[in-house]
Amino acid sequence: MSLKQISANKCWGGTQHVYSHAAQETACTMRFSLFLPPQAQNGNKVPVLYWLSGLTCTEENFTVKAGAQRVAAELGLAIVAPDTSPRGLGIPGEGDNFAFGLGAGFYLDATQAPWSKGYRMYSYVTRELPALIAAEFSAQIDTSRSGIFGHSMGGHGALVCALRNPAQYKSVSAFAPISSPTRSDWGRHALNNYLGADTAAWAEYDSSLLLQAQGWAGPAILVDQGDKDQFINQLQPETLREAASAAGVALTLRLQPGYDHSYFFVQSFIADHLRHHAQHL
Amino acid sequence: MSLKQISANKCWGGTQHVYSHAAQETACTMRFSLFLPPQAQNGNKVPVLYWLSGLTCTEENFTVKAGAQRVAAELGLAIVAPDTSPRGLGIPGEGDNFAFGLGAGFYLDATQAPWSKGYRMYSYVTRELPALIAAEFSAQIDTSRSGIFGHSMGGHGALVCALRNPAQYKSVSAFAPISSPTRSDWGRHALNNYLGADTAAWAEYDSSLLLQAQGWAGPAILVDQGDKDQFINQLQPETLREAASAAGVALTLRLQPGYDHSYFFVQSFIADHLRHHAQHL
Repeated sequence: MSLKQISANKCWGGTQHVYSHAAQETACTMRFSLFLPPQAQNGNKVPVLYWLSGLTCTEENFTVKAGAQRVAAELGLAIVAPDTSPRGLGIPGEGDNFAFGLGAGFYLDATQAPWSKGYRMYSYVTRELPALIAAEFSAQIDTSRSGIFGHSMGGHGALVCALRNPAQYKSVSAFAPISSPTRSDWGRHALNNYLGADTAAWAEYDSSLLLQAQGWAGPAILVDQGDKDQFINQLQPETLREAASAAGVALTLRLQPGYDHSYFFVQSFIADHLRHHAQHL
Repeated sequence: MSLKQISANKCWGGTQHVYSHAAQETACTMRFSLFLPPQAQNGNKVPVLYWLSGLTCTEENFTVKAGAQRVAAELGLAIVAPDTSPRGLGIPGEGDNFAFGLGAGFYLDATQAPWSKGYRMYSYVTRELPALIAAEFSAQIDTSRSGIFGHSMGGHGALVCALRNPAQYKSVSAFAPISSPTRSDWGRHALNNYLGADTAAWAEYDSSLLLQAQGWAGPAILVDQGDKDQFINQLQPETLREAASAAGVALTLRLQPGYDHSYFFVQSFIADHLRHHAQHL
Protein backbone atom coordinates (compact mmCIF):
# COMPACT_ATOMS: atom_id res chain seq x y z
CA MET A 1 0.00 0.00 0.00
CA SER A 2 2.94 2.35 -0.50
CA LEU A 3 1.95 5.79 -1.67
CA LYS A 4 3.57 7.82 -4.41
CA GLN A 5 3.05 11.57 -4.36
CA ILE A 6 2.21 12.89 -7.84
CA SER A 7 1.82 16.53 -6.87
CA ALA A 8 1.45 18.84 -3.89
CA ASN A 9 0.25 22.44 -4.24
CA LYS A 10 -0.36 24.91 -1.45
CA CYS A 11 -3.96 26.07 -1.64
CA TRP A 12 -5.91 28.27 0.77
CA GLY A 13 -3.26 27.69 3.43
CA GLY A 14 -3.56 23.90 3.16
CA THR A 15 -2.11 21.49 0.63
CA GLN A 16 -3.76 19.85 -2.35
CA HIS A 17 -2.09 16.50 -2.97
CA VAL A 18 -2.46 13.86 -5.67
CA TYR A 19 -1.22 10.37 -4.86
CA SER A 20 -1.05 7.03 -6.63
CA HIS A 21 -0.80 3.56 -5.18
CA ALA A 22 -1.02 -0.08 -6.24
CA ALA A 23 -4.58 -1.06 -5.35
CA GLN A 24 -5.55 -4.65 -4.67
CA GLU A 25 -9.31 -4.38 -5.20
CA THR A 26 -8.98 -2.80 -8.62
CA ALA A 27 -5.86 -4.74 -9.61
CA CYS A 28 -4.17 -1.61 -10.94
CA THR A 29 -2.54 1.65 -9.95
CA MET A 30 -5.14 4.08 -8.65
CA ARG A 31 -4.93 7.81 -8.18
CA PHE A 32 -6.72 9.95 -5.63
CA SER A 33 -6.50 13.54 -4.54
CA LEU A 34 -6.26 14.60 -0.92
CA PHE A 35 -6.75 18.10 0.40
CA LEU A 36 -5.31 18.65 3.84
CA PRO A 37 -6.52 21.87 5.43
CA PRO A 38 -4.20 24.12 7.43
CA GLN A 39 -5.66 22.78 10.69
CA ALA A 40 -4.16 19.32 10.00
CA GLN A 41 -0.79 20.15 11.52
CA ASN A 42 1.21 19.61 14.67
CA GLY A 43 -0.72 16.50 15.60
CA ASN A 44 -4.12 18.15 15.20
CA LYS A 45 -6.43 15.71 13.42
CA VAL A 46 -9.30 16.75 11.18
CA PRO A 47 -12.40 14.90 9.91
CA VAL A 48 -12.42 13.57 6.35
CA LEU A 49 -14.92 13.75 3.53
CA TYR A 50 -14.86 11.36 0.61
CA TRP A 51 -15.98 12.81 -2.73
CA LEU A 52 -17.11 10.41 -5.46
CA SER A 53 -17.11 11.83 -8.99
CA GLY A 54 -19.40 11.19 -11.93
CA LEU A 55 -19.13 9.51 -15.31
CA THR A 56 -15.97 10.28 -17.36
CA CYS A 57 -14.23 11.93 -14.41
CA THR A 58 -10.88 11.20 -12.83
CA GLU A 59 -9.64 12.44 -9.46
CA GLU A 60 -8.87 15.75 -11.17
CA ASN A 61 -12.31 17.15 -12.02
CA PHE A 62 -13.51 17.80 -8.49
CA THR A 63 -10.05 18.85 -7.39
CA VAL A 64 -9.68 21.67 -9.91
CA LYS A 65 -13.31 22.63 -10.60
CA ALA A 66 -15.39 22.42 -7.43
CA GLY A 67 -13.77 25.20 -5.42
CA ALA A 68 -14.07 23.10 -2.28
CA GLN A 69 -10.67 23.93 -0.81
CA ARG A 70 -11.70 27.42 0.30
CA VAL A 71 -14.42 26.21 2.65
CA ALA A 72 -12.60 23.01 3.62
CA ALA A 73 -9.71 25.20 4.76
CA GLU A 74 -12.09 27.37 6.74
CA LEU A 75 -13.85 24.44 8.39
CA GLY A 76 -10.85 22.17 8.85
CA LEU A 77 -11.94 19.27 6.64
CA ALA A 78 -9.77 16.87 4.68
CA ILE A 79 -11.22 15.76 1.34
CA VAL A 80 -10.31 12.56 -0.49
CA ALA A 81 -11.39 12.26 -4.14
CA PRO A 82 -10.63 8.94 -5.87
CA ASP A 83 -10.75 8.10 -9.57
CA THR A 84 -14.02 6.63 -10.90
CA SER A 85 -12.86 3.25 -12.20
CA PRO A 86 -9.81 1.06 -12.55
CA ARG A 87 -7.58 2.11 -15.46
CA GLY A 88 -5.20 0.08 -17.53
CA LEU A 89 -6.69 -3.37 -17.03
CA GLY A 90 -6.89 -3.69 -20.81
CA ILE A 91 -10.33 -5.30 -20.88
CA PRO A 92 -11.55 -5.26 -24.50
CA GLY A 93 -14.18 -2.58 -25.03
CA GLU A 94 -13.76 -0.95 -21.62
CA GLY A 95 -13.31 2.46 -23.23
CA ASP A 96 -16.13 2.23 -25.76
CA ASN A 97 -19.04 3.63 -23.73
CA PHE A 98 -18.81 6.73 -21.56
CA ALA A 99 -21.41 5.26 -19.19
CA PHE A 100 -19.75 1.86 -18.69
CA GLY A 101 -16.19 0.68 -18.08
CA LEU A 102 -13.44 3.29 -17.89
CA GLY A 103 -14.57 6.31 -15.90
CA ALA A 104 -17.80 4.52 -15.09
CA GLY A 105 -17.16 2.03 -12.31
CA PHE A 106 -20.53 2.82 -10.68
CA TYR A 107 -19.05 2.19 -7.20
CA LEU A 108 -20.03 -1.47 -7.23
CA ASP A 109 -18.20 -4.81 -7.09
CA ALA A 110 -18.67 -6.53 -10.45
CA THR A 111 -19.45 -10.22 -10.35
CA GLN A 112 -19.42 -10.90 -14.08
CA ALA A 113 -16.31 -11.74 -16.12
CA PRO A 114 -14.28 -9.97 -17.36
CA TRP A 115 -15.31 -6.98 -15.19
CA SER A 116 -15.05 -8.85 -11.91
CA LYS A 117 -11.27 -8.77 -12.23
CA GLY A 118 -10.87 -5.15 -11.11
CA TYR A 119 -14.15 -3.29 -11.36
CA ARG A 120 -14.53 -3.37 -7.59
CA MET A 121 -14.93 0.29 -6.79
CA TYR A 122 -17.36 -0.39 -3.94
CA SER A 123 -14.78 -2.31 -1.95
CA TYR A 124 -12.05 0.07 -3.04
CA VAL A 125 -13.93 3.14 -1.84
CA THR A 126 -15.44 1.72 1.34
CA ARG A 127 -12.57 -0.52 2.49
CA GLU A 128 -9.20 -0.27 0.78
CA LEU A 129 -8.99 3.50 0.38
CA PRO A 130 -10.16 4.33 3.93
CA ALA A 131 -7.67 1.76 5.29
CA LEU A 132 -4.91 3.41 3.27
CA ILE A 133 -5.88 6.86 4.52
CA ALA A 134 -5.97 5.60 8.09
CA ALA A 135 -2.56 3.98 7.76
CA GLU A 136 -0.77 6.79 5.94
CA PHE A 137 -2.38 9.91 7.42
CA SER A 138 -3.02 8.92 11.03
CA ALA A 139 -1.24 12.06 12.21
CA GLN A 140 -3.49 14.39 10.18
CA ILE A 141 -6.87 12.68 9.86
CA ASP A 142 -9.32 11.33 12.43
CA THR A 143 -10.91 8.58 10.34
CA SER A 144 -13.58 7.96 12.98
CA ARG A 145 -15.14 11.19 11.68
CA SER A 146 -15.86 10.43 8.01
CA GLY A 147 -18.57 11.66 5.67
CA ILE A 148 -19.20 11.02 1.99
CA PHE A 149 -20.64 12.97 -0.91
CA GLY A 150 -20.54 12.98 -4.68
CA HIS A 151 -21.97 14.04 -8.02
CA SER A 152 -24.16 12.16 -10.50
CA MET A 153 -22.81 8.57 -10.63
CA GLY A 154 -20.79 9.61 -7.59
CA GLY A 155 -23.92 10.88 -5.85
CA HIS A 156 -25.35 7.40 -6.33
CA GLY A 157 -22.08 5.98 -5.02
CA ALA A 158 -22.03 8.22 -1.95
CA LEU A 159 -25.61 7.33 -1.03
CA VAL A 160 -25.03 3.60 -1.51
CA CYS A 161 -21.78 3.61 0.48
CA ALA A 162 -23.38 5.53 3.36
CA LEU A 163 -26.63 3.58 3.46
CA ARG A 164 -24.79 0.27 3.50
CA ASN A 165 -22.20 1.43 6.02
CA PRO A 166 -23.96 3.78 8.41
CA ALA A 167 -21.43 3.20 11.17
CA GLN A 168 -18.60 4.25 8.86
CA TYR A 169 -20.07 7.45 7.41
CA LYS A 170 -21.62 9.93 9.81
CA SER A 171 -23.09 12.14 7.06
CA VAL A 172 -23.95 11.92 3.38
CA SER A 173 -24.96 14.37 0.67
CA ALA A 174 -25.14 14.44 -3.10
CA PHE A 175 -25.30 16.66 -6.16
CA ALA A 176 -27.66 15.43 -8.89
CA PRO A 177 -27.31 11.75 -7.95
CA ILE A 178 -28.45 8.87 -10.11
CA SER A 179 -31.15 8.18 -7.56
CA SER A 180 -32.21 4.77 -8.74
CA PRO A 181 -29.83 2.99 -11.13
CA THR A 182 -32.26 0.08 -11.48
CA ARG A 183 -34.67 2.52 -13.14
CA SER A 184 -32.27 4.53 -15.34
CA ASP A 185 -30.88 3.51 -18.73
CA TRP A 186 -27.29 4.24 -17.68
CA GLY A 187 -27.77 2.26 -14.50
CA ARG A 188 -29.53 -0.72 -16.04
CA HIS A 189 -26.86 -1.11 -18.71
CA ALA A 190 -24.10 -0.97 -16.10
CA LEU A 191 -25.83 -3.23 -13.57
CA ASN A 192 -26.65 -5.81 -16.22
CA ASN A 193 -23.07 -5.99 -17.43
CA TYR A 194 -21.32 -5.75 -14.08
CA LEU A 195 -23.73 -7.87 -12.01
CA GLY A 196 -25.57 -10.03 -14.51
CA ALA A 197 -29.19 -10.30 -15.56
CA ASP A 198 -30.54 -11.36 -12.16
CA THR A 199 -31.98 -8.07 -10.95
CA ALA A 200 -32.13 -9.28 -7.34
CA ALA A 201 -28.44 -8.42 -7.04
CA TRP A 202 -29.02 -4.89 -8.30
CA ALA A 203 -30.92 -3.64 -5.27
CA GLU A 204 -27.73 -3.51 -3.20
CA TYR A 205 -26.59 -0.66 -5.44
CA ASP A 206 -29.79 1.35 -5.68
CA SER A 207 -29.98 4.12 -3.11
CA SER A 208 -33.75 4.58 -3.40
CA LEU A 209 -34.36 0.89 -2.80
CA LEU A 210 -31.82 0.78 0.02
CA LEU A 211 -33.32 3.85 1.64
CA GLN A 212 -36.82 2.44 1.46
CA ALA A 213 -35.72 -0.98 2.74
CA GLN A 214 -33.57 0.05 5.67
CA GLY A 215 -33.80 3.78 6.25
CA TRP A 216 -31.01 6.03 7.51
CA ALA A 217 -30.57 6.98 11.14
CA GLY A 218 -27.94 9.66 10.49
CA PRO A 219 -28.48 13.38 9.98
CA ALA A 220 -30.68 14.65 7.16
CA ILE A 221 -29.47 13.74 3.69
CA LEU A 222 -28.76 16.89 1.66
CA VAL A 223 -29.29 16.68 -2.12
CA ASP A 224 -29.02 19.53 -4.63
CA GLN A 225 -30.49 19.10 -8.09
CA GLY A 226 -30.53 21.63 -10.91
CA ASP A 227 -33.92 21.96 -12.54
CA LYS A 228 -32.29 22.49 -15.96
CA ASP A 229 -30.18 19.33 -15.64
CA GLN A 230 -29.83 17.79 -19.09
CA PHE A 231 -29.68 14.29 -17.59
CA ILE A 232 -32.71 14.54 -15.35
CA ASN A 233 -34.27 11.42 -16.91
CA GLN A 234 -31.31 9.39 -15.69
CA LEU A 235 -31.31 10.98 -12.24
CA GLN A 236 -34.96 10.82 -11.19
CA PRO A 237 -34.74 12.73 -7.90
CA GLU A 238 -38.41 12.02 -7.25
CA THR A 239 -37.60 8.33 -6.63
CA LEU A 240 -35.27 9.35 -3.84
CA ARG A 241 -37.87 11.70 -2.41
CA GLU A 242 -40.52 9.00 -2.43
CA ALA A 243 -38.18 6.47 -0.83
CA ALA A 244 -37.19 8.89 1.92
CA SER A 245 -40.81 9.70 2.55
CA ALA A 246 -41.78 6.04 2.72
CA ALA A 247 -38.89 5.29 5.08
CA GLY A 248 -39.46 8.35 7.25
CA VAL A 249 -35.94 9.61 6.52
CA ALA A 250 -35.20 13.34 6.55
CA LEU A 251 -34.16 14.35 3.04
CA THR A 252 -33.40 17.96 2.13
CA LEU A 253 -33.86 17.89 -1.64
CA ARG A 254 -33.29 21.33 -3.11
CA LEU A 255 -34.28 22.00 -6.71
CA GLN A 256 -31.96 24.78 -7.88
CA PRO A 257 -33.63 26.87 -10.57
CA GLY A 258 -31.72 27.28 -13.82
CA TYR A 259 -28.78 25.06 -12.90
CA ASP A 260 -27.56 22.20 -15.10
CA HIS A 261 -25.39 19.13 -14.46
CA SER A 262 -21.97 20.78 -14.66
CA TYR A 263 -19.35 21.66 -12.09
CA PHE A 264 -20.52 25.27 -12.47
CA PHE A 265 -23.59 23.98 -10.59
CA VAL A 266 -21.51 22.01 -8.10
CA GLN A 267 -19.21 24.96 -7.27
CA SER A 268 -22.24 27.17 -6.66
CA PHE A 269 -23.47 25.03 -3.75
CA ILE A 270 -20.39 23.15 -2.55
CA ALA A 271 -20.05 25.38 0.51
CA ASP A 272 -23.49 24.37 1.78
CA HIS A 273 -22.53 20.70 1.56
CA LEU A 274 -19.23 21.18 3.35
CA ARG A 275 -20.94 23.09 6.15
CA HIS A 276 -23.63 20.42 6.38
CA HIS A 277 -21.03 17.69 6.82
CA ALA A 278 -18.88 19.74 9.21
CA GLN A 279 -21.86 20.12 11.53
CA HIS A 280 -22.00 16.36 11.96
CA LEU A 281 -18.29 15.52 11.93
CA MET B 1 -18.18 40.02 -35.73
CA SER B 2 -21.10 37.65 -35.21
CA LEU B 3 -20.90 35.67 -32.03
CA LYS B 4 -21.57 31.96 -31.64
CA GLN B 5 -22.44 30.70 -28.18
CA ILE B 6 -20.55 27.50 -27.36
CA SER B 7 -21.96 27.01 -23.89
CA ALA B 8 -23.89 28.74 -21.13
CA ASN B 9 -23.99 27.45 -17.56
CA LYS B 10 -25.69 29.03 -14.61
CA CYS B 11 -23.11 29.67 -11.90
CA TRP B 12 -23.46 31.50 -8.60
CA GLY B 13 -26.66 33.10 -9.83
CA GLY B 14 -25.03 34.47 -12.98
CA THR B 15 -24.13 32.77 -16.25
CA GLN B 16 -20.80 31.44 -17.43
CA HIS B 17 -20.69 31.67 -21.22
CA VAL B 18 -18.18 30.56 -23.84
CA TYR B 19 -18.36 32.21 -27.26
CA SER B 20 -16.50 31.95 -30.53
CA HIS B 21 -16.21 34.49 -33.31
CA ALA B 22 -14.28 35.11 -36.52
CA ALA B 23 -11.49 37.47 -35.46
CA GLN B 24 -9.80 39.81 -37.90
CA GLU B 25 -6.63 40.52 -35.95
CA THR B 26 -5.77 36.88 -35.45
CA ALA B 27 -7.15 35.73 -38.83
CA CYS B 28 -8.94 32.78 -37.25
CA THR B 29 -11.85 31.77 -35.06
CA MET B 30 -11.23 32.81 -31.47
CA ARG B 31 -12.89 31.67 -28.27
CA PHE B 32 -13.41 33.61 -25.10
CA SER B 33 -15.36 33.02 -21.93
CA LEU B 34 -17.67 35.62 -20.42
CA PHE B 35 -19.11 35.51 -16.92
CA LEU B 36 -22.12 37.73 -16.46
CA PRO B 37 -23.03 38.23 -12.80
CA PRO B 38 -26.63 38.24 -11.61
CA GLN B 39 -26.56 42.04 -11.40
CA ALA B 40 -26.25 42.33 -15.22
CA GLN B 41 -30.00 42.13 -15.82
CA ASN B 42 -32.94 44.35 -16.61
CA GLY B 43 -30.78 47.06 -18.14
CA ASN B 44 -28.40 47.21 -15.18
CA LYS B 45 -24.83 47.44 -16.48
CA VAL B 46 -21.81 46.11 -14.67
CA PRO B 47 -18.06 46.82 -14.99
CA VAL B 48 -15.88 44.32 -16.84
CA LEU B 49 -12.56 42.70 -16.03
CA TYR B 50 -10.36 41.12 -18.70
CA TRP B 51 -8.35 38.11 -17.61
CA LEU B 52 -5.29 37.10 -19.63
CA SER B 53 -4.07 33.56 -19.13
CA GLY B 54 -0.60 32.08 -19.17
CA LEU B 55 1.41 29.77 -21.41
CA THR B 56 -0.41 26.66 -22.69
CA CYS B 57 -3.82 27.92 -21.53
CA THR B 58 -7.03 28.40 -23.47
CA GLU B 59 -10.07 30.36 -22.34
CA GLU B 60 -11.00 27.32 -20.24
CA ASN B 61 -8.30 27.21 -17.56
CA PHE B 62 -9.25 30.37 -15.70
CA THR B 63 -12.93 29.71 -16.26
CA VAL B 64 -12.98 26.33 -14.54
CA LYS B 65 -10.06 26.61 -12.11
CA ALA B 66 -9.85 30.10 -10.64
CA GLY B 67 -13.08 30.14 -8.65
CA ALA B 68 -13.63 33.77 -9.67
CA GLN B 69 -17.37 33.52 -10.31
CA ARG B 70 -18.27 33.43 -6.62
CA VAL B 71 -16.81 36.84 -5.87
CA ALA B 72 -17.65 38.32 -9.27
CA ALA B 73 -21.28 37.43 -8.58
CA GLU B 74 -21.06 39.06 -5.18
CA LEU B 75 -19.43 42.25 -6.48
CA GLY B 76 -21.30 42.50 -9.77
CA LEU B 77 -18.35 42.13 -12.15
CA ALA B 78 -18.33 40.68 -15.65
CA ILE B 79 -15.16 38.77 -16.56
CA VAL B 80 -13.91 38.18 -20.11
CA ALA B 81 -11.18 35.55 -20.57
CA PRO B 82 -9.81 35.13 -24.11
CA ASP B 83 -7.63 32.37 -25.51
CA THR B 84 -3.86 32.93 -25.44
CA SER B 85 -3.01 32.76 -29.14
CA PRO B 86 -4.54 32.29 -32.56
CA ARG B 87 -5.29 28.64 -33.33
CA GLY B 88 -5.52 26.86 -36.62
CA LEU B 89 -3.36 29.14 -38.76
CA GLY B 90 -1.28 26.11 -39.68
CA ILE B 91 2.07 27.87 -39.39
CA PRO B 92 4.79 25.18 -39.49
CA GLY B 93 6.25 24.57 -36.04
CA GLU B 94 3.70 26.69 -34.18
CA GLY B 95 2.95 23.82 -31.80
CA ASP B 96 6.51 22.71 -31.15
CA ASN B 97 7.39 24.90 -28.14
CA PHE B 98 5.09 25.44 -25.18
CA ALA B 99 6.55 28.94 -24.70
CA PHE B 100 6.15 30.13 -28.30
CA GLY B 101 3.40 29.89 -30.91
CA LEU B 102 0.19 28.09 -29.97
CA GLY B 103 -0.90 28.98 -26.47
CA ALA B 104 1.94 31.49 -26.26
CA GLY B 105 0.93 34.64 -28.14
CA PHE B 106 2.58 36.85 -25.50
CA TYR B 107 -0.07 39.55 -26.04
CA LEU B 108 1.98 41.31 -28.71
CA ASP B 109 1.60 42.13 -32.41
CA ALA B 110 4.18 40.10 -34.31
CA THR B 111 6.03 41.92 -37.06
CA GLN B 112 8.05 39.00 -38.41
CA ALA B 113 6.79 36.54 -41.01
CA PRO B 114 5.16 34.09 -40.75
CA TRP B 115 3.91 35.09 -37.28
CA SER B 116 2.77 38.56 -38.34
CA LYS B 117 -0.16 36.96 -40.15
CA GLY B 118 -2.25 36.33 -37.06
CA TYR B 119 -0.13 36.50 -33.92
CA ARG B 120 -1.60 39.89 -33.06
CA MET B 121 -2.94 39.26 -29.57
CA TYR B 122 -2.12 42.78 -28.40
CA SER B 123 -4.51 44.35 -30.89
CA TYR B 124 -6.99 41.55 -30.40
CA VAL B 125 -7.10 41.99 -26.63
CA THR B 126 -6.94 45.78 -26.48
CA ARG B 127 -9.04 46.68 -29.54
CA GLU B 128 -11.01 43.97 -31.30
CA LEU B 129 -12.28 42.06 -28.28
CA PRO B 130 -13.35 45.16 -26.30
CA ALA B 131 -15.13 46.48 -29.41
CA LEU B 132 -16.93 43.17 -29.75
CA ILE B 133 -17.93 43.19 -26.09
CA ALA B 134 -19.16 46.77 -26.39
CA ALA B 135 -21.19 45.94 -29.49
CA GLU B 136 -22.70 42.69 -28.32
CA PHE B 137 -23.19 43.27 -24.60
CA SER B 138 -24.09 46.94 -24.40
CA ALA B 139 -27.18 46.09 -22.36
CA GLN B 140 -25.20 44.22 -19.70
CA ILE B 141 -21.72 45.77 -19.57
CA ASP B 142 -20.52 49.33 -19.02
CA THR B 143 -17.31 49.20 -21.01
CA SER B 144 -16.21 52.60 -19.72
CA ARG B 145 -15.44 50.74 -16.48
CA SER B 146 -12.81 48.17 -17.51
CA GLY B 147 -9.94 46.61 -15.63
CA ILE B 148 -7.42 43.95 -16.62
CA PHE B 149 -5.52 41.19 -14.84
CA GLY B 150 -3.80 37.94 -15.63
CA HIS B 151 -1.40 35.18 -14.72
CA SER B 152 2.21 34.54 -15.76
CA MET B 153 2.43 35.38 -19.49
CA GLY B 154 -1.02 36.88 -18.97
CA GLY B 155 0.20 38.92 -16.03
CA HIS B 156 2.79 40.38 -18.39
CA GLY B 157 0.01 40.95 -20.92
CA ALA B 158 -2.27 42.66 -18.42
CA LEU B 159 0.47 45.01 -17.25
CA VAL B 160 1.51 45.88 -20.81
CA CYS B 161 -2.07 46.46 -21.96
CA ALA B 162 -2.84 48.71 -18.99
CA LEU B 163 0.41 50.68 -19.03
CA ARG B 164 0.05 51.42 -22.76
CA ASN B 165 -3.67 52.20 -22.51
CA PRO B 166 -4.21 53.92 -19.16
CA ALA B 167 -7.39 55.62 -20.34
CA GLN B 168 -8.89 52.27 -21.29
CA TYR B 169 -8.11 50.27 -18.13
CA LYS B 170 -8.88 51.83 -14.78
CA SER B 171 -7.13 49.14 -12.76
CA VAL B 172 -4.58 46.38 -13.27
CA SER B 173 -3.30 43.45 -11.24
CA ALA B 174 -1.36 40.27 -11.84
CA PHE B 175 -0.50 36.86 -10.48
CA ALA B 176 3.12 35.81 -10.95
CA PRO B 177 3.65 37.95 -14.06
CA ILE B 178 6.61 37.64 -16.40
CA SER B 179 7.79 41.01 -15.15
CA SER B 180 10.38 41.73 -17.80
CA PRO B 181 10.24 39.57 -20.93
CA THR B 182 13.36 41.24 -22.32
CA ARG B 183 15.25 39.69 -19.40
CA SER B 184 13.70 36.21 -19.29
CA ASP B 185 14.55 33.25 -21.51
CA TRP B 186 10.91 32.62 -22.42
CA GLY B 187 10.45 36.28 -23.24
CA ARG B 188 13.64 36.75 -25.24
CA HIS B 189 12.91 33.73 -27.39
CA ALA B 190 9.37 34.95 -28.09
CA LEU B 191 10.31 38.59 -28.67
CA ASN B 192 13.14 37.63 -31.00
CA ASN B 193 10.91 35.45 -33.13
CA TYR B 194 7.78 37.61 -33.09
CA LEU B 195 9.46 41.04 -33.31
CA GLY B 196 12.91 40.42 -34.78
CA ALA B 197 16.41 40.85 -33.46
CA ASP B 198 16.21 44.63 -33.02
CA THR B 199 15.66 44.85 -29.29
CA ALA B 200 14.45 48.46 -29.51
CA ALA B 201 11.04 47.12 -30.50
CA TRP B 202 10.92 44.83 -27.48
CA ALA B 203 10.55 47.56 -24.88
CA GLU B 204 6.94 48.19 -25.89
CA TYR B 205 6.13 44.76 -24.47
CA ASP B 206 8.13 44.86 -21.25
CA SER B 207 6.09 46.01 -18.29
CA SER B 208 9.09 46.86 -16.12
CA LEU B 209 10.57 49.04 -18.86
CA LEU B 210 7.19 50.61 -19.61
CA LEU B 211 6.57 51.30 -15.95
CA GLN B 212 9.95 52.91 -15.47
CA ALA B 213 9.63 54.98 -18.66
CA GLN B 214 6.14 56.33 -18.24
CA GLY B 215 4.74 55.41 -14.83
CA TRP B 216 1.13 54.64 -14.02
CA ALA B 217 -1.31 57.20 -12.68
CA GLY B 218 -4.04 54.71 -11.82
CA PRO B 219 -4.63 52.98 -8.49
CA ALA B 220 -1.94 50.83 -6.92
CA ILE B 221 -0.92 47.82 -8.98
CA LEU B 222 -1.58 44.59 -7.06
CA VAL B 223 0.74 41.65 -7.73
CA ASP B 224 0.75 38.30 -5.95
CA GLN B 225 3.75 36.02 -6.29
CA GLY B 226 4.28 32.62 -4.69
CA ASP B 227 7.69 32.28 -3.10
CA LYS B 228 7.85 28.60 -4.12
CA ASP B 229 7.07 29.39 -7.76
CA GLN B 230 9.00 26.92 -9.93
CA PHE B 231 9.37 29.53 -12.69
CA ILE B 232 10.64 32.38 -10.54
CA ASN B 233 13.71 32.83 -12.77
CA GLN B 234 11.44 33.66 -15.69
CA LEU B 235 9.22 35.96 -13.64
CA GLN B 236 11.70 38.17 -11.80
CA PRO B 237 9.29 40.12 -9.62
CA GLU B 238 12.15 42.24 -8.31
CA THR B 239 12.48 43.93 -11.70
CA LEU B 240 8.90 45.13 -11.41
CA ARG B 241 9.49 46.30 -7.86
CA GLU B 242 12.56 48.26 -8.88
CA ALA B 243 10.78 49.82 -11.85
CA ALA B 244 7.82 50.86 -9.72
CA SER B 245 10.14 52.31 -7.14
CA ALA B 246 12.11 54.26 -9.75
CA ALA B 247 8.89 55.56 -11.32
CA GLY B 248 7.24 56.39 -8.00
CA VAL B 249 4.34 54.07 -8.79
CA ALA B 250 2.46 52.37 -5.97
CA LEU B 251 2.96 48.61 -6.33
CA THR B 252 1.55 46.16 -3.81
CA LEU B 253 3.77 43.14 -4.40
CA ARG B 254 2.84 40.33 -2.04
CA LEU B 255 5.14 37.33 -1.69
CA GLN B 256 2.88 34.45 -0.68
CA PRO B 257 4.82 31.91 1.35
CA GLY B 258 4.70 28.33 0.13
CA TYR B 259 2.66 28.98 -3.01
CA ASP B 260 3.72 27.83 -6.47
CA HIS B 261 2.74 28.84 -10.02
CA SER B 262 -0.50 26.86 -10.31
CA TYR B 263 -4.16 27.80 -10.31
CA PHE B 264 -4.26 26.44 -6.74
CA PHE B 265 -2.25 29.60 -5.97
CA VAL B 266 -4.46 31.78 -8.17
CA GLN B 267 -7.72 30.54 -6.60
CA SER B 268 -6.35 31.22 -3.12
CA PHE B 269 -6.02 34.96 -3.77
CA ILE B 270 -8.44 35.67 -6.62
CA ALA B 271 -10.96 37.28 -4.27
CA ASP B 272 -8.46 39.93 -3.21
CA HIS B 273 -7.87 40.87 -6.84
CA LEU B 274 -11.55 41.09 -7.67
CA ARG B 275 -12.18 43.30 -4.64
CA HIS B 276 -9.21 45.48 -5.58
CA HIS B 277 -10.58 46.05 -9.07
CA ALA B 278 -14.15 46.52 -7.89
CA GLN B 279 -13.00 49.38 -5.64
CA HIS B 280 -11.81 51.28 -8.70
CA LEU B 281 -14.50 50.33 -11.22
